Amino acid sequence: MRTSIATVCLSGTLEEKLDAVASAGFDGVEIFTQDLLVSPTAPEEVRARAADLGLCLDLYQPFRNGVELAPDKFDDALRRLRRTAELMNRLGTPTLLVCSNVSPDAVADDDLVAEQLHRMGEVAADHGVRLAYEALAWGTHVHGHDHAHRLVLAADHPNVGTCLDSFHILSRGGDPASIQDMDGDKIFFVQLADAPLMRLDVLSWSRHHRVFPGEGDFDLVDVMTRLVRSGYSGPVSLEIFNDSFRQADVVRTAVDGLRSLRWLEDRTRSAMASELSASPGTEGSVGAGTRGTTDRLELQTLPKISAPSGWDFVELRTTDLGDTTRLLHRLGFRLGGHHRSKDVQVWLQGDVRVVVSEAGEGTRRQPDLDPRERPGRRPVAEIAGLGYEVEDPAAAYQRALQLGSDPVNRSELPGEAVLRGVWAPDGTEIFFGPAPGAGVPAWLEEFGVESEATGFADLITGIDHVNVAQKWQHYDEGVLFYTSVLALEAAAAQDVPGPSGLVRSQVMRSPDGAVRMPLNLAPTAAEQGSFVGVAYPEHIALASTDVREVARRAMRRGLEFLTVPENYYEDLVTRFDLDPATVAELRELNLLYDRDEHGEFLHFYTRTLGDLFMEVVERRGYQGFGAEDAPVRLAAQYRLQSRETSAEQRWT
Amino acid sequence: MRTSIATVCLSGTLEEKLDAVASAGFDGVEIFTQDLLVSPTAPEEVRARAADLGLCLDLYQPFRNGVELAPDKFDDALRRLRRTAELMNRLGTPTLLVCSNVSPDAVADDDLVAEQLHRMGEVAADHGVRLAYEALAWGTHVHGHDHAHRLVLAADHPNVGTCLDSFHILSRGGDPASIQDMDGDKIFFVQLADAPLMRLDVLSWSRHHRVFPGEGDFDLVDVMTRLVRSGYSGPVSLEIFNDSFRQADVVRTAVDGLRSLRWLEDRTRSAMASELSASPGTEGSVGAGTRGTTDRLELQTLPKISAPSGWDFVELRTTDLGDTTRLLHRLGFRLGGHHRSKDVQVWLQGDVRVVVSEAGEGTRRQPDLDPRERPGRRPVAEIAGLGYEVEDPAAAYQRALQLGSDPVNRSELPGEAVLRGVWAPDGTEIFFGPAPGAGVPAWLEEFGVESEATGFADLITGIDHVNVAQKWQHYDEGVLFYTSVLALEAAAAQDVPGPSGLVRSQVMRSPDGAVRMPLNLAPTAAEQGSFVGVAYPEHIALASTDVREVARRAMRRGLEFLTVPENYYEDLVTRFDLDPATVAELRELNLLYDRDEHGEFLHFYTRTLGDLFMEVVERRGYQGFGAEDAPVRLAAQYRLQSRETSAEQRWT
Repeated sequence: MRTSIATVCLSGTLEEKLDAVASAGFDGVEIFTQDLLVSPTAPEEVRARAADLGLCLDLYQPFRNGVELAPDKFDDALRRLRRTAELMNRLGTPTLLVCSNVSPDAVADDDLVAEQLHRMGEVAADHGVRLAYEALAWGTHVHGHDHAHRLVLAADHPNVGTCLDSFHILSRGGDPASIQDMDGDKIFFVQLADAPLMRLDVLSWSRHHRVFPGEGDFDLVDVMTRLVRSGYSGPVSLEIFNDSFRQADVVRTAVDGLRSLRWLEDRTRSAMASELSASPGTEGSVGAGTRGTTDRLELQTLPKISAPSGWDFVELRTTDLGDTTRLLHRLGFRLGGHHRSKDVQVWLQGDVRVVVSEAGEGTRRQPDLDPRERPGRRPVAEIAGLGYEVEDPAAAYQRALQLGSDPVNRSELPGEAVLRGVWAPDGTEIFFGPAPGAGVPAWLEEFGVESEATGFADLITGIDHVNVAQKWQHYDEGVLFYTSVLALEAAAAQDVPGPSGLVRSQVMRSPDGAVRMPLNLAPTAAEQGSFVGVAYPEHIALASTDVREVARRAMRRGLEFLTVPENYYEDLVTRFDLDPATVAELRELNLLYDRDEHGEFLHFYTRTLGDLFMEVVERRGYQGFGAEDAPVRLAAQYRLQSRETSAEQRWT
Repeated sequence: MRTSIATVCLSGTLEEKLDAVASAGFDGVEIFTQDLLVSPTAPEEVRARAADLGLCLDLYQPFRNGVELAPDKFDDALRRLRRTAELMNRLGTPTLLVCSNVSPDAVADDDLVAEQLHRMGEVAADHGVRLAYEALAWGTHVHGHDHAHRLVLAADHPNVGTCLDSFHILSRGGDPASIQDMDGDKIFFVQLADAPLMRLDVLSWSRHHRVFPGEGDFDLVDVMTRLVRSGYSGPVSLEIFNDSFRQADVVRTAVDGLRSLRWLEDRTRSAMASELSASPGTEGSVGAGTRGTTDRLELQTLPKISAPSGWDFVELRTTDLGDTTRLLHRLGFRLGGHHRSKDVQVWLQGDVRVVVSEAGEGTRRQPDLDPRERPGRRPVAEIAGLGYEVEDPAAAYQRALQLGSDPVNRSELPGEAVLRGVWAPDGTEIFFGPAPGAGVPAWLEEFGVESEATGFADLITGIDHVNVAQKWQHYDEGVLFYTSVLALEAAAAQDVPGPSGLVRSQVMRSPDGAVRMPLNLAPTAAEQGSFVGVAYPEHIALASTDVREVARRAMRRGLEFLTVPENYYEDLVTRFDLDPATVAELRELNLLYDRDEHGEFLHFYTRTLGDLFMEVVERRGYQGFGAEDAPVRLAAQYRLQSRETSAEQRWT
């Protein structure tokens, strides 16, 4: 039996994967698109390397959204297919996996689909490749292996066959018996996967996945409201069975738990108060309900806050003052001044204020991180603090304290601005600054800055978002902290594949989007590469109205960009049909590109300094965070870090 | 609002939990039974400590299987209730959580249940405590909060109320609106939990939980059989989206993957061959099927093996030869002899042969374990190798190699026995020894042992099981290795709670039970305590027909037992109604006790030496592995290890 394996099964880079597959003794390998496009190795080199290793490149995959299309969309699919087939010729992969369509727009018309498959078969034949059409278990209309096989027979083209995947068949309870009645020559490829039978019954859900109030999806304010109305007067207790909590630091979990109750109490009281004020005829206290019972729970409230209206400052801590300020200068920042009593400087551009302080020994933000993961030689450069502009700093600070946050002890001389802050669970110092009024903030004056309006033609105008790393097991805690203390809201989370595992990106944002903070949740059991080297680097994304000009200036000033692989640009053309001149400019400036239904997104990343890098973004209506491009970044950072630590140059 | 939290939410020991809860600022705490019974702190001391901390002990929980019982079972429930209420008086907990019954034997008779609750209320009143009856979402008959409330009203006893838990209500889509119509004074307790809405749809299942063939529950032999019959001739490829594989060492995962295909190939061919021989009229090759197609996949076979018939030997590696051999001596082992050419000795008792070798530098079994977790000062003492008695050692060795295992390079002088072995993925050396014939094994003669039948009255007769530690993320790999290489079978896995997280116990066993190997899967992201200190210790469980006599002899010889807390013995009486003399003897000898439907189980643990401890067990028909007692052991080991590393004595 000829054995093969998809690169997506394995950790590491494409090059590491092929080496490992060959060394294990497989006959062949499936190339997963993303593994190629994040790789700096050209398709021809991949082909040559595979030949040296004695590996057959069996399949290229997946080709999505290529069939079951409305006629007006099918032409672009054929264009993408042509480009993909050309790439496959360079790679030497004979077969392309074509998935059944999962879009709600997919067309349910077997005759049409058969015709489309036939026309795709003609394109494939022109390039000497074959198409293996696979029914995904969650395909909109085509989700049975028999159905896909029938469509392939109807397509009646020698270059069109089917691909069978045991997961897609068995997970839906499909009957494999029909396989034996198929024509074996029309089965172009077979993928095997096993899986544990998963019935996430309510018992398992309860025993492993409970979280503290505010960290899940239950409407507990409703439960609490009903409880007040019942006249209950006893304790309200947390009973949480959670695999992560069982491993986490006990002191930290207890604080997290009480925070969840204080937050829920406050939310319940607010909800009941606004209900009351909506029906002014009702008598009684805030907690009074349908039965007129008073609030025997005695719900407490927290100081009211609203979400921050913007970023006051970002504080970086570094052992490499030269490298850090050089990076800022290359991005167009200018030195605002030095603090009058502390060893700290501020750098300015547009509305961005970056405070830079020198790190002493033992000032790591997350000192509990495994020392193995933070080799002593690596420089420190990290986000130490974040300043937010809030309506009522005193109230926000009091609220944070009542939610169990530890205050940051910050020394100030008499006459200096008082800045109140607390520690976030991830070790960041969170400061509550006043919302912008006239002139510069009081604290900025201490740096000798008298006016920010210095007439510079700043290309960078503000902070687009700040990306803070968290350990995977502190996901829930992080979300609740930023929700309850800063009134940010959690968007839907997204998993981004990196060479050392999935990195979850959880965007926290203010309702108006003025403050956006993706939390990066990194796998902590990574064996392939280290936690810090790969997933930890966090960053500040700066907003620009002309990212190309920022990149050009930075290039002139000698900025080290994070290199974007040529395979990525090739794929951009396939995906978006960009014209050659646009792509040439992107390539020249190391820019990445994405598009959503709202518009375009151009951005670049700098090389990592310590645990930090910078990103500059230009949004042309686009509303995402370039999650499609994050794997390219993770792979490039992983590659650099492996090179640094192992001094090993592979494939050279 | 009075805030409380269940100890089960938190990591660490009971003492650490109470400290953390008080320090976070909670008003009270729920005591989870198991946290108390694994603790060395007496109930009165817990009460005093909580008072010092300003914590109210709000609830004791859970009381399971106490209601909805057939009348003949109810008396024992009342006896347990009485003992539990006495304990609650000592603790000072006013309220007991009574769960709805989850047994298939639960009685669905509301009148009977109300009467039982009333009678329980009378017992509770006698002791001045209250009962809070809670509907578990998976209760056999009572799983709605309204139902539980109705039963409580019908019970009509002032000491009987209900407990509401938001998880149990909302996870089943219950309507919290009815809470407000309850009598608040009849709600005795409230537990809040949030949870993410979990629909484990087929897409999430596919993207995160696929595993290699043989590591899940799918019948892939059936799929392969059908595929052969279809006449398919292409590659068979693995496409596995798995969160752990994405983090794991790439070389290791690739080997695991190919092993799964080789194993599946062999199993498919065997299945088809036996099908063929069952219908002798059918013409064609082994792969021929209903359509007479030949096997164009050319399935390969592996050398045939059967499961081991027993243990040949266990090899320990240690830096503390004195401590290790002293431990063996105290358990009744005698020195068999020293190897004639290697620096190795063998210790014998009954059918047990323990080879002891001295560890040099860098000979750790799992060198990839975090150095932080293995402080340099800790002695090495670990299971280095396992020898199995197999029918055909040469075939088993060849099979293991064909399954991608690395051979162990073992030197032997001319004339010495040749012992073939391979490395297990967890770093253990696995040796294939001949099934027992006449006299002593050839390798044993090299130790100067000429006969094992030396007339000793051995109290230990054999190896009951060997417990090997694995990292959590290598669960699937470990199961497939022992399945495919040794023909062991996986029993149902069980999660055991420890102070640093859940430890999964996955028993691998030969069909006749002669070889039993629980794999201990330890959480690797533990922050509360370290991986090695708590979850890693692995052990050899020795079988005895008189564990009490083994314990007495060991005590005379000065063995250090792992101490069993008094709270555990108190709970034994509650659980099993053991008579005082039996419990006194168990206590005196540090014995633990369990019972299943097949019989009784007595056992003791030694203190840990390096990463190893020993257990001696006496089975009186019992078929389990004392999983109920494992939390006691984990807590005791955690406690000792915290003391060793922090030199901190809490609560003294």
